[in-house]
Amino acid sequence: MVLELKVPQGEELAALIPLWPVFLSYLLSFIYVGLYWNNHHHLFQAIRQVNGGILWSNIHLLFWLSLMPFTTAWMGENHFGRWPTLLYGVNLFCCAVAYYLLQTCLIRHHGANSALAHALGKDIKGKISPVLYLLGIVLAALDQSRAGAAFFIGAAFLWLVPDTRIERIVEEQTRDDKE
Amino acid sequence: MVLELKVPQGEELAALIPLWPVFLSYLLSFIYVGLYWNNHHHLFQAIRQVNGGILWSNIHLLFWLSLMPFTTAWMGENHFGRWPTLLYGVNLFCCAVAYYLLQTCLIRHHGANSALAHALGKDIKGKISPVLYLLGIVLAALDQSRAGAAFFIGAAFLWLVPDTRIERIVEEQTRDDKE
Amino acid sequence: MVLELKVPQGEELAALIPLWPVFLSYLLSFIYVGLYWNNHHHLFQAIRQVNGGILWSNIHLLFWLSLMPFTTAWMGENHFGRWPTLLYGVNLFCCAVAYYLLQTCLIRHHGANSALAHALGKDIKGKISPVLYLLGIVLAALDQSRAGAAFFIGAAFLWLVPDTRIERIVEEQTRDDKE
Amino acid sequence: MVLELKVPQGEELAALIPLWPVFLSYLLSFIYVGLYWNNHHHLFQAIRQVNGGILWSNIHLLFWLSLMPFTTAWMGENHFGRWPTLLYGVNLFCCAVAYYLLQTCLIRHHGANSALAHALGKDIKGKISPVLYLLGIVLAALDQSRAGAAFFIGAAFLWLVPDTRIERIVEEQTRDDKE
Repeated sequence: MVLELKVPQGEELAALIPLWPVFLSYLLSFIYVGLYWNNHHHLFQAIRQVNGGILWSNIHLLFWLSLMPFTTAWMGENHFGRWPTLLYGVNLFCCAVAYYLLQTCLIRHHGANSALAHALGKDIKGKISPVLYLLGIVLAALDQSRAGAAFFIGAAFLWLVPDTRIERIVEEQTRDDKE
Repeated sequence: MVLELKVPQGEELAALIPLWPVFLSYLLSFIYVGLYWNNHHHLFQAIRQVNGGILWSNIHLLFWLSLMPFTTAWMGENHFGRWPTLLYGVNLFCCAVAYYLLQTCLIRHHGANSALAHALGKDIKGKISPVLYLLGIVLAALDQSRAGAAFFIGAAFLWLVPDTRIERIVEEQTRDDKE
Repeated sequence: MVLELKVPQGEELAALIPLWPVFLSYLLSFIYVGLYWNNHHHLFQAIRQVNGGILWSNIHLLFWLSLMPFTTAWMGENHFGRWPTLLYGVNLFCCAVAYYLLQTCLIRHHGANSALAHALGKDIKGKISPVLYLLGIVLAALDQSRAGAAFFIGAAFLWLVPDTRIERIVEEQTRDDKE
Repeated sequence: MVLELKVPQGEELAALIPLWPVFLSYLLSFIYVGLYWNNHHHLFQAIRQVNGGILWSNIHLLFWLSLMPFTTAWMGENHFGRWPTLLYGVNLFCCAVAYYLLQTCLIRHHGANSALAHALGKDIKGKISPVLYLLGIVLAALDQSRAGAAFFIGAAFLWLVPDTRIERIVEEQTRDDKE
């Protein structure tokens, strides 16, 4: 996690107050990076084999995640202003697309009838959240960037529930292996 | 470990002297982060299964640990002043609460009669150290921040003895597995 | 990945425009580091034993990779100027040589008749890309540094196809192990 | 590896020349950190069990290694001057002592008759290098800091040969496990 908080100059409690937008964007991005780390961990626990396409779609996802500290800091330092908030939403949207591509590569490699494919089959949250990011991006473009940021926060809460579908199948596979 | 020490300007030995509070806070936080890393390692060696709640309470702990470089630097650069020392204590307290929540999630998942639950059962150090952090926070609030910092140092010494209870149960499980 | 993007001052979209050479060099280096990480992962999956020489040639490779953020930033901040682009090319060339040495150490240790040696045997991409780096270096030396940078981008596209030869042999070994 | 090289201002080749002491100290520290990483890897491959004392002496070693970027930068930025070079030598000496303590903890835990204890038994390089560091420290104290730095470079070359004694025992254990 390379998200960074700059130390304020003064030593009074008041010196922390101007940091609130930086801190809020840090917290939001920490949750998102934690979300991806969590789901990524679940996903790679469920898979059995890796090929070139999977590794590359993994690197592609890491690229967009690696831009998060940049877009987070730009949004925080500019108090959730128009363009920084819009760019942050675009970054979130690209992460979601990259995660979707990684899932697609995994399903293509393991087969449409694999346990993994069935487990990932519906993925309702994975389809709702990009829509929320797009709505937030549109709101930011219309100069309602704080309302847009609220959508990004809302989408994080949606994802706070871990992807139990994958979890379930991992348990089943582990049970099968033992039998 | 992302704790950072800035290189001084001069090349005389005297150029290091103004760094002592930064260095002391760095040392203290290095011990704390090492402590959590150590105990965390022991904890995850003792567990058999992970679920969403466990992963999230783990991310929650990592969030508070990720703030340590920020609060450490603010305290060190302001020579253990009132508010920075108070905030550092709050950070330590939140880490302790997060670690307690992680333990609770682990026990709930493994069952109150599990070997892990019995091993963690008393956890005297885990109950004393938050009290020491609170006392340090109160002292800092009363503008006795250096006395407060002494409590944080004392609590670190308390934790220097590793959590042998967990260690013991891991050994027992390993022995059982071999039999 | 320690490649760094500095946050711009303004909050207008125009504030991002001067960042394009920094962003382009960041993207290029992200792909290269991802490439090495990917191939390195494949390579170490295929090997069975490690000795001192292998570990040292691994550290040697990591040294040149560790210089990438430095040469990337120098090239980006100076808009793909003559000497920064030349140095970037030298860095890429040294990474390629270090990777070749690591492969050589692995083959010497596993034997010229080993499955690994056969798998790595031809390595056409590993021989073309250093030539492309050298051509880019020569172009930069002749003050055609942007044309030189185009060669570095082209060589990255060459490597986008993962090293399927190694992948294949890993699968075969896994199959042999199961039989 | 958190050693850092600052990007120079100009884009001419001449802009790199003032960086030579920073680069040389970076290279030296990269070798040392690589050495410790290498030997540490060998050591933990050879051990079978971990206890609290081992984990703590490991954290102790990591503490001194974590100071390397600080002492490296101070020495490099001050052109191998008296006090920075002396401090760098002290840092190397503390790393060597910490590594020795970690070895001692491992031997105590595994028993004086264990394969590990026999493998580590003589450890000639581990005894020569602290002497070289001390000689370098004394030379730096006598304002012959560049001669002192030469001793630190010489000691690195001594360590370039990996610890084959440990390597040998790991191979024997692996062979025993298979039989």
